[in-house]
Amino acid sequence: MKPNAYKNRLTALRRRMASTAADGWDAAWILQPENRRYLSGFKAEDGHYPESSGSLLISNSRALLITDSRYTLQAQNEAIDFEIKTLRQNLADSMPAWVQEMGIQTLGFEQDYLVWSLHRKLHERLKGLSPPVGLTPLNGVVEEMREVKEPEEIRSLEAAADLISMVMDEIARRLTPGMTEREVAWEIEGLIREGGAEGLSFPPIVASGPNSALPHAVPTDRPIQADEPVILDLGARVQGYCSDMTRTIFTGDPPPWLKTIYRTVRQAQLAALKEVRPMVESAYLDARARDLIQEAGFGDCFGHGLGHGVGLAVHERPRLGPGNSVQLKEGTVFTIEPGIYMPGKGGVRLEEMVLIEATGPRLLTRNKLFYDV
Amino acid sequence: MKPNAYKNRLTALRRRMASTAADGWDAAWILQPENRRYLSGFKAEDGHYPESSGSLLISNSRALLITDSRYTLQAQNEAIDFEIKTLRQNLADSMPAWVQEMGIQTLGFEQDYLVWSLHRKLHERLKGLSPPVGLTPLNGVVEEMREVKEPEEIRSLEAAADLISMVMDEIARRLTPGMTEREVAWEIEGLIREGGAEGLSFPPIVASGPNSALPHAVPTDRPIQADEPVILDLGARVQGYCSDMTRTIFTGDPPPWLKTIYRTVRQAQLAALKEVRPMVESAYLDARARDLIQEAGFGDCFGHGLGHGVGLAVHERPRLGPGNSVQLKEGTVFTIEPGIYMPGKGGVRLEEMVLIEATGPRLLTRNKLFYDV
Repeated sequence: MKPNAYKNRLTALRRRMASTAADGWDAAWILQPENRRYLSGFKAEDGHYPESSGSLLISNSRALLITDSRYTLQAQNEAIDFEIKTLRQNLADSMPAWVQEMGIQTLGFEQDYLVWSLHRKLHERLKGLSPPVGLTPLNGVVEEMREVKEPEEIRSLEAAADLISMVMDEIARRLTPGMTEREVAWEIEGLIREGGAEGLSFPPIVASGPNSALPHAVPTDRPIQADEPVILDLGARVQGYCSDMTRTIFTGDPPPWLKTIYRTVRQAQLAALKEVRPMVESAYLDARARDLIQEAGFGDCFGHGLGHGVGLAVHERPRLGPGNSVQLKEGTVFTIEPGIYMPGKGGVRLEEMVLIEATGPRLLTRNKLFYDV
Repeated sequence: MKPNAYKNRLTALRRRMASTAADGWDAAWILQPENRRYLSGFKAEDGHYPESSGSLLISNSRALLITDSRYTLQAQNEAIDFEIKTLRQNLADSMPAWVQEMGIQTLGFEQDYLVWSLHRKLHERLKGLSPPVGLTPLNGVVEEMREVKEPEEIRSLEAAADLISMVMDEIARRLTPGMTEREVAWEIEGLIREGGAEGLSFPPIVASGPNSALPHAVPTDRPIQADEPVILDLGARVQGYCSDMTRTIFTGDPPPWLKTIYRTVRQAQLAALKEVRPMVESAYLDARARDLIQEAGFGDCFGHGLGHGVGLAVHERPRLGPGNSVQLKEGTVFTIEPGIYMPGKGGVRLEEMVLIEATGPRLLTRNKLFYDV
């Protein structure tokens, strides 16, 4: 990111803070790792939950990054617009002094991320200050900022999508009947690393035969058979940004039922893709794909939503499904991933990453591995 | 695990529920992934937080595993003592009916894991029931059960420690100056997989030269030089259980200052190890190592605790540090990992996994890669 990218994001957050829409908080406390990186540039990841590498305390005039001695140096190097504070005791004991020093009246917190016990402790400490300080939910304000991508973010997403497109081509070449799902998954991980990624967006899904009927299958020791579908759902992280792509591979000539569902899924995907434009309703896109699958007689076999936003997190706003419709904005990046799953038999899912431009959709996944069946 | 292992754990939890010490809850709601696996045998992992694969609702007479359609089949196969319930709507909307049907009066929840927003929603719903149902913190009751390992758990921990011991020997053989930290980390991941592990306990730490002065360094593209320390901190997961082991490797003849701190760290480790026995105080063990490091003049260079429990989670109870002392029980497995870190120069850390037996310590890590310097 350019050095002033983070300054601009802080400014946008502060504008939001000043507006009446901000539900009355005059400072934000950011614990969520992707929000933390988005606002500060601090790249450290959290350990296993709840081992946090730090949090941000942002008021109108100051911005603190609170971390511990393991990460002080890294924070100083990466979060150049922040004052770095190293914890000497636990967070709930240390926060009140900073909150008071900054003159905060009501501190906004991330209600879907802060655990009950830490909220409780901090609430007790803050209400004991003079004057007392309140706590109020932030209601996803940073997540909302992240929904529309900046040009530099789009370049990182493109790089992540390019890398995974190449990995998909290569693994499709290498995949032969007899290899187990786990062996294929391991080769994929190697290709992603060798391709220069920072890491995986998520552990690869390699689901063959009947396992392909499970949308979130975990790779098993099952050897892949000839003439069955193999769902490969892969993602790589580049410069912090994730890619997410799915192809369904045939190791031989698929039986007619499989050709039918493949064709239906692909048509559903194209039907949704065609309608992508600024301000389109997310439920409308979902319905374009879902109606087509329903009309083909597979309505009961598409149990998940059409897609989800992708950015610093592999699953982020917006969610695209039949309910909770939102208007999709220019600059949003999300997946279109219809699927048909026949329990006990097998399934097909195809997933693309798409960017909404002023003129319509632009595919970020440029892999052409689709069958004309 | 033997089929009745989970039955016995449920019985132990229910005994605790019936005792007056239970702070007045008559059912437990378990969201924390390792607690969930410990009590039910359900092996699914959560996605990126907060994408949960399920939770347990346990009263005196019934035990429910609540999951979604992605995991129903797996839950039925693995959690054989539980009734499997598949969510049709969100958790906060679905829970009240089950809670009422089970006749629960006060539901215990995991206060360090449940996020504020879900607690809030559920609290609203439950207090609207007739009669109203209360929510109260469980205060780590399952974590406490997990502290003392059963014989079968110890066998899994041994298997995980054996595997990582072999990986350590092999990577020490392969490691040559010129390789980058990331290359070494990637080879380690390969060896762990090929060794038959389910996965990593955590991403390997490979910290060379000045990076070895950072206790939680992330592998970089820095090529390893001759005559400098390389800290390798590795862990593998086998049958759900984690190993965690650290060695400091020299690629050539270490300079005198490095020999001094290596010798000091090793002596500190042995001093603590010697005192391991049932009912010893955790702070006493920490002090045995810390005092020795202090007396050698490196008191300011050992900034972390002596160690931590290891089991289904790589970091679990008990914590061993200078404060919050606890009596360590027979059957507890934990690490002893003193370190000396010289900022800008380098560091040494050595870590063993040890089991407390009636007669004293038993090392689970059987790797002998220590230098006599």
